[in-house]
Amino acid sequence: MKNFTSIHDIPNVEQLVQQAFDFKNNPLSQSEIGKGKTLGMVFFNPSLRTRMSTQKAAQNLGMNIISLNVNDGWQIEFEDEVIMNGNKAEHIKEAAAVISQFVNVLAVRSFPTLIDREKDYQDFILQKFIQYASVPILSLESAILHPLQSLADFLTIKENQKTKHPKVVLTWAPHPKVLPQVVANSFCEWMNFADVDLTITHPKGYELSPDFSKNATIEYNQNKAFKNADFVYAKNWSSFNYYGKILSQDESWKISSEKMALTNNGKFMHCLPVRRNVVVDDSVLDGPNSLVIEQANNRTFATQSVLFDLLKNKKNEL
Amino acid sequence: MKNFTSIHDIPNVEQLVQQAFDFKNNPLSQSEIGKGKTLGMVFFNPSLRTRMSTQKAAQNLGMNIISLNVNDGWQIEFEDEVIMNGNKAEHIKEAAAVISQFVNVLAVRSFPTLIDREKDYQDFILQKFIQYASVPILSLESAILHPLQSLADFLTIKENQKTKHPKVVLTWAPHPKVLPQVVANSFCEWMNFADVDLTITHPKGYELSPDFSKNATIEYNQNKAFKNADFVYAKNWSSFNYYGKILSQDESWKISSEKMALTNNGKFMHCLPVRRNVVVDDSVLDGPNSLVIEQANNRTFATQSVLFDLLKNKKNEL
Amino acid sequence: MKNFTSIHDIPNVEQLVQQAFDFKNNPLSQSEIGKGKTLGMVFFNPSLRTRMSTQKAAQNLGMNIISLNVNDGWQIEFEDEVIMNGNKAEHIKEAAAVISQFVNVLAVRSFPTLIDREKDYQDFILQKFIQYASVPILSLESAILHPLQSLADFLTIKENQKTKHPKVVLTWAPHPKVLPQVVANSFCEWMNFADVDLTITHPKGYELSPDFSKNATIEYNQNKAFKNADFVYAKNWSSFNYYGKILSQDESWKISSEKMALTNNGKFMHCLPVRRNVVVDDSVLDGPNSLVIEQANNRTFATQSVLFDLLKNKKNEL
Repeated sequence: MKNFTSIHDIPNVEQLVQQAFDFKNNPLSQSEIGKGKTLGMVFFNPSLRTRMSTQKAAQNLGMNIISLNVNDGWQIEFEDEVIMNGNKAEHIKEAAAVISQFVNVLAVRSFPTLIDREKDYQDFILQKFIQYASVPILSLESAILHPLQSLADFLTIKENQKTKHPKVVLTWAPHPKVLPQVVANSFCEWMNFADVDLTITHPKGYELSPDFSKNATIEYNQNKAFKNADFVYAKNWSSFNYYGKILSQDESWKISSEKMALTNNGKFMHCLPVRRNVVVDDSVLDGPNSLVIEQANNRTFATQSVLFDLLKNKKNEL
Repeated sequence: MKNFTSIHDIPNVEQLVQQAFDFKNNPLSQSEIGKGKTLGMVFFNPSLRTRMSTQKAAQNLGMNIISLNVNDGWQIEFEDEVIMNGNKAEHIKEAAAVISQFVNVLAVRSFPTLIDREKDYQDFILQKFIQYASVPILSLESAILHPLQSLADFLTIKENQKTKHPKVVLTWAPHPKVLPQVVANSFCEWMNFADVDLTITHPKGYELSPDFSKNATIEYNQNKAFKNADFVYAKNWSSFNYYGKILSQDESWKISSEKMALTNNGKFMHCLPVRRNVVVDDSVLDGPNSLVIEQANNRTFATQSVLFDLLKNKKNEL
Repeated sequence: MKNFTSIHDIPNVEQLVQQAFDFKNNPLSQSEIGKGKTLGMVFFNPSLRTRMSTQKAAQNLGMNIISLNVNDGWQIEFEDEVIMNGNKAEHIKEAAAVISQFVNVLAVRSFPTLIDREKDYQDFILQKFIQYASVPILSLESAILHPLQSLADFLTIKENQKTKHPKVVLTWAPHPKVLPQVVANSFCEWMNFADVDLTITHPKGYELSPDFSKNATIEYNQNKAFKNADFVYAKNWSSFNYYGKILSQDESWKISSEKMALTNNGKFMHCLPVRRNVVVDDSVLDGPNSLVIEQANNRTFATQSVLFDLLKNKKNEL
């Protein structure tokens, strides 16, 4: 694998998934492969799960880690042919090339502007890192996708599905802040690959980009959508069509025990962090059908499997 | 040991203390036990000695470290049954459970509010971590106790005592800021265990909680208290009874060479950081009887001994 | 080597340089020497290249790393005999002595005030660390020198020189911010040692301290200076004589392709970060004669060679 930015970068998804489960059974089975190798991590925003699970995955492979919070240092210029006499001290051309000298894989977490849709959906920051780095790039979340989260979600569904072709519902839920579409977009990509029946439910105006939602059933009635669901994945996102806008904070979309009762004893999923009693009720999160902690746990093994392939590739190149 | 939050968590204090001295003699004697294991560190406030000595202790045992500054990320909600539509993005239930997926021991540094005594003396934040984490909790200082500091202090007294039953004086000293009672509380617990004669001296109104001070002699005259002291432990704290208040900044309580001359050639101790010429004079800190740097050094071996027991326990559980 | 703060601390520069090239060929050849040993890193300001290359160097030697951003914690008092009742919580005497308990080598990055020339040119902060630490000090940049950068620059010139006695030009370039003289000072020291013909060019008023520039040719006409240059090292600095002042932002001093055409097919160097199209044109930075990424790469091996000597020394002391 050259870089990991989406499911489309993976030559053999089934193999990568099996490898993740193997690492879950035996996390230290390849603890020598990363010896003397370094994972660089660049964060443009705070992170808990992503930071910790990525460190854990790298340490399981014996790698060293060098981490950089961009906001603790100077600002980076991403535009070309600029006269840099403002507040940005270093150009991405140098930053990415220089960091590449010190690391074997470079993990980047960036975020959308939620203002400029065209630039966001070009995945501007991530693509600039890919352009100027000389080592494999590992996306820890970008302006449009959160592929490691989705791989962890995919593993969690695999572990918990009781039927060959489960019904999976991705439901919008209310939230006080403007959030990206990345988790929803990425989840759609992986559910398209999975052998599941995917329904997306949200208020009108919250349609995702058809690039991601085109193979799913869209159902504007949340109660109808939940019927017979085996998995309910809750997530807030801001509007794609009215880009970055909050169109609704309708509390009736909150996931409650009553709503979960409409499902086929459905499992509850969320990528975390989650706002209790805004997105989902305590009773659901604390109930026996909640998978949220296991989703977080699977982040480690999703990342470890991807890192292993990126390291193997790099090794072969040398 | 299940968790380490106070001396009362230790099954066999003498054994733990001997183990700490053994590690001081040979820090790398158990450098394989932590291989593939991870210490998580969560800080709610800045830290120098605690952060560095804990890292050093974990590295001496071969552990990896994942560190999180809560203030660099989002705020955590600690109250139950809250509608989380404010500025707190994640509940301690998820935060503690998720971090537990990535680490083998979770070290937490929290602080008192110094406003709400009831909540502080329940050790609210630390107890929430214990409640929701699935791995052993190591207190790096809490709202009421600083047990690793006190264990290091205990080691330092052991190393420097010339008599079987030394006189130890814990003295309040002036300070411009509102400070917790934690170091003083914790020191009392350990001196109660130690075979020493403990006197506490402070201006009226600075009485510690009787839970901690009950076995000590209270002497409001600092000069009298210092008489024949083998060890003088200086520390500022704010009032327990007039909770969180500064009642005095009386400079006459500063520890001077003249005051130390009243002692039995007593050693000077302080947990650091210390404000020179406010809490204690340069001449005392820089004099031959100052133990403050050795106290800091012993932090490493105190922590290493505790971590070793927490790891052994965890290992046995697996 | 006792400490590393300038070229003058190195007993045998040729040996240290050869050792750096050996590490570049085989970075993990001494990966056991640092086992169980710790590099402490203290930063008073943000850092990208220095932080990452130093970590990489230490990890190549098998060392653990403990890093401290001073600005994330409390402020340190550097003055002696002060009554510390202000905003500074810890004195350098304790800070340096305590950190020394936890690390085997202590790396410090400090900066000049650019206001008080006398104090800056005493290298006040660095010297206080040397005074109070009990372990070797490694300068990661100080108020007057950036010796690891200059060693990396020296390595880069060695690798790229085509003649025995190349012409090296250190040229001032415009910049919107007030910058230190450290890179220029330090480069002069190393070029004095190297077998090169050093010319310094800058607008009037930007003369460096004669302590550093005394063996160089000073040429106020940049075009004349560039003639037949084999290497052009660009850097902005603020005035030494009118201390910390910006006297000129003359754009005609920017390094352009036209100016580089005056050289002997000269290589372009800069320590980074660099402001594109302010200090130097895109065409030069992106051209085939730019060495800036290789300079950054050589930071790792410069530091690794120095750390190796500091570790060996420390080891011998034990």
